[in-house]
Amino acid sequence: MDAIHIITKKREGLELSSAEIQYLIEGYTAGRIPDYQMAAFLMAAQLRGMALSETITLTQCMLNSGRILDFSAVSSPVIDKHSTGGVGDKISLILTPIVGACGVCVPMISGRGLGHTGGTLDKLESIPGFRTNLQINDIYRQIRALGVAMIGATKEIAPADRQLYALRDVTASVDFIPFITASILSKKLAEGIDGLVLDVKLGRGAFMKTGEEARELAETLVGVGEHFGMSTIAWLTNMDIPLGNAIGNWLEVEESIRCLQGEGPQDVLELSLKLSGEMIALADLAESPEEGEEMAHAAVQSGHALNFLAQIVEAQGGDPAVIHDPALRMRSLEPQTVTVPLDISGYIRDVDAFTLAEIGNDLGVGRLVITDEIDPEAGIVLHLRPGEKAAPGQPLASFYTRKTDQSEEVARRIYSAFTFSKTPVDKPQVLLDRLTFAGWESNS
Amino acid sequence: MDAIHIITKKREGLELSSAEIQYLIEGYTAGRIPDYQMAAFLMAAQLRGMALSETITLTQCMLNSGRILDFSAVSSPVIDKHSTGGVGDKISLILTPIVGACGVCVPMISGRGLGHTGGTLDKLESIPGFRTNLQINDIYRQIRALGVAMIGATKEIAPADRQLYALRDVTASVDFIPFITASILSKKLAEGIDGLVLDVKLGRGAFMKTGEEARELAETLVGVGEHFGMSTIAWLTNMDIPLGNAIGNWLEVEESIRCLQGEGPQDVLELSLKLSGEMIALADLAESPEEGEEMAHAAVQSGHALNFLAQIVEAQGGDPAVIHDPALRMRSLEPQTVTVPLDISGYIRDVDAFTLAEIGNDLGVGRLVITDEIDPEAGIVLHLRPGEKAAPGQPLASFYTRKTDQSEEVARRIYSAFTFSKTPVDKPQVLLDRLTFAGWESNS
Repeated sequence: MDAIHIITKKREGLELSSAEIQYLIEGYTAGRIPDYQMAAFLMAAQLRGMALSETITLTQCMLNSGRILDFSAVSSPVIDKHSTGGVGDKISLILTPIVGACGVCVPMISGRGLGHTGGTLDKLESIPGFRTNLQINDIYRQIRALGVAMIGATKEIAPADRQLYALRDVTASVDFIPFITASILSKKLAEGIDGLVLDVKLGRGAFMKTGEEARELAETLVGVGEHFGMSTIAWLTNMDIPLGNAIGNWLEVEESIRCLQGEGPQDVLELSLKLSGEMIALADLAESPEEGEEMAHAAVQSGHALNFLAQIVEAQGGDPAVIHDPALRMRSLEPQTVTVPLDISGYIRDVDAFTLAEIGNDLGVGRLVITDEIDPEAGIVLHLRPGEKAAPGQPLASFYTRKTDQSEEVARRIYSAFTFSKTPVDKPQVLLDRLTFAGWESNS
Repeated sequence: MDAIHIITKKREGLELSSAEIQYLIEGYTAGRIPDYQMAAFLMAAQLRGMALSETITLTQCMLNSGRILDFSAVSSPVIDKHSTGGVGDKISLILTPIVGACGVCVPMISGRGLGHTGGTLDKLESIPGFRTNLQINDIYRQIRALGVAMIGATKEIAPADRQLYALRDVTASVDFIPFITASILSKKLAEGIDGLVLDVKLGRGAFMKTGEEARELAETLVGVGEHFGMSTIAWLTNMDIPLGNAIGNWLEVEESIRCLQGEGPQDVLELSLKLSGEMIALADLAESPEEGEEMAHAAVQSGHALNFLAQIVEAQGGDPAVIHDPALRMRSLEPQTVTVPLDISGYIRDVDAFTLAEIGNDLGVGRLVITDEIDPEAGIVLHLRPGEKAAPGQPLASFYTRKTDQSEEVARRIYSAFTFSKTPVDKPQVLLDRLTFAGWESNS
């Protein structure tokens, strides 16, 4: 067996054997197969496609490249959620304390923001003192004590994925469903979890721009996840417009706290409760996702979920007081406001999540390359959303940035992300379709 | 402009601009674009295809990466021949002295054998003392004095091709017509020639296994060559069976000498005279290829061509006496003979060039990797060819090798390359179709 032969086989559109995929991945992580051969393979696979069985083997090899966490000593089922990435997606910050308060164990490993999507780690680190770089023994200790940890990937978790991702990023091999699937699931399987709820985002602000792509990704994720004996459920959700009103690290933590106080934007709360219900049901703590959703709702109403977030923050070195009173975290930036023009009166028709994400990045919210510095306070807050009435002069959005010389241009760009309608507009639906191993169910 | 964007564009099947191709090739040769990005591009281009205009730009960029020889001071037109590589292909050794004797200038840059095809340089170097590593000033001097030089590529000639070829070789990107075209023509254009005759081989012993591929390669070579103002003619020739009887470096020099004495195998002589005629006509030393072929035939009959080979050998440090009397080069290997089995009587139906090339490599004729050592004396000589009558016990082939412990197995393998027929078989035609800028003409 040699790499050239395997690349040739894939170039000719043939299916690779498990032994061939294993030879490539093990050789690559061991440094025997150079980047240029792996790059040629990645491109050939992208253009010729990979069968589900090949994606399963790829996932297995990437999983085997590192350590698998072992929660067999934990009595309750261990469940996680993963989102394919969107704009204003702070669901993890809300859902994790909700399900934690309901008794679900969650060893959640998250990533950093890159490109137009935000990252849970960056949001958590905007909480003063919060540490995400826990070592494996700390994770075990915290899961035993609290049931929940919110952390970054350690170097022991699927190192092949980290190495491959860096190569995919510079060789135009990122947007390929089998690679995305193996990347997500090798890391989630390494968490040693029993069940996974996937939030597969679809639309302008998502990686998957079409329903066809998003459905294919969801089907591949569920197919591969179930193959590994991990109960896997996927929700297809709308990412044409931002989730909630806040885009920006600390701004999203504040919005999450409001959601846990029962006051946040309706779309964020709806999605958080739905996915929480799925996790609670997967953990066998409810008879059905609907019953799980009721338990989740009760955990918010009772304040248990918010208290649980404060406990997570405290356990990971952060200041729990700011969870109960976010104003304690001093803000160094003043909001600048964009208003509805005086000649416009009617309804918000639409707002483009991708455009807002790009503006947010320019303000300091995210990164274009992984080494960029971010500004935890920078961001955008929408005051009006699609379907809402817009009166002349009313505040449309605010933004926070240190780059005050660009304010006029930023205001113009934020305004340009909106479209207006003279006649009433329906509020867009956030939850689209649900996929389990049994097949698709429509939410409409 | 950046490499990822260009790779993505090609991955999506779009045509690249000249500026984009230039950015890639210049960046790669300058070390700004790493191997892994070029490998991803090579695979994307292979699987998505390249337009003729892209192949022209690629050729131009590879040509521009190095120096272009300048023969404007030479009064007669400068012409070369290139073969896409086959088994037993010693045509350059015969044709170059023929056309040189007729007054054509030929700065022939050849390669070494690799894989199943032989290389002119290895054959020339089996002549005692012959030097192929001339520097550019030596080449100019020899062309002025003699009109002909037979040399290896210098590092000033199309360095981008050398660098790209090394990468293609290890990333399964060798067999792609636009890359093959740019590789051949960038080096031939760098010779500063006015006209080029191409021998595009088709069949088991060639890189192009189907007529469709071989015709596409010929069309691309002629289209790109003519675009650069170089008169380009291609012959499609049969490479299902070896060319001539000898396979092996010194064995092929001996067979070439016999051809120049008018005694060599008919297929080798026919092809040498045909391609020589084309070169003589391209050089405007004959009114037509047919007239050129007659001049070539006369140069063989008169002994001028053989004398000219001795002059080339002498000019490049070799011993001209062995050209007139090959027996002067002492042979250290004895032939071992394979005979027609006693139960077989009839005709040779076929002999597989590829199988013989593989056996030849095992005997020491060629290389699997460029660092392998070759044995100039090793090889195979056929005593019977397709169409010839085979009597029981008659010598079928001989072989020469230092690996005498393998003789029984080698004999068995050589025998297995032949098939036999009880009824008469037509001799295969070597010259198939001819392509000029005006289109295809059939030889049948």
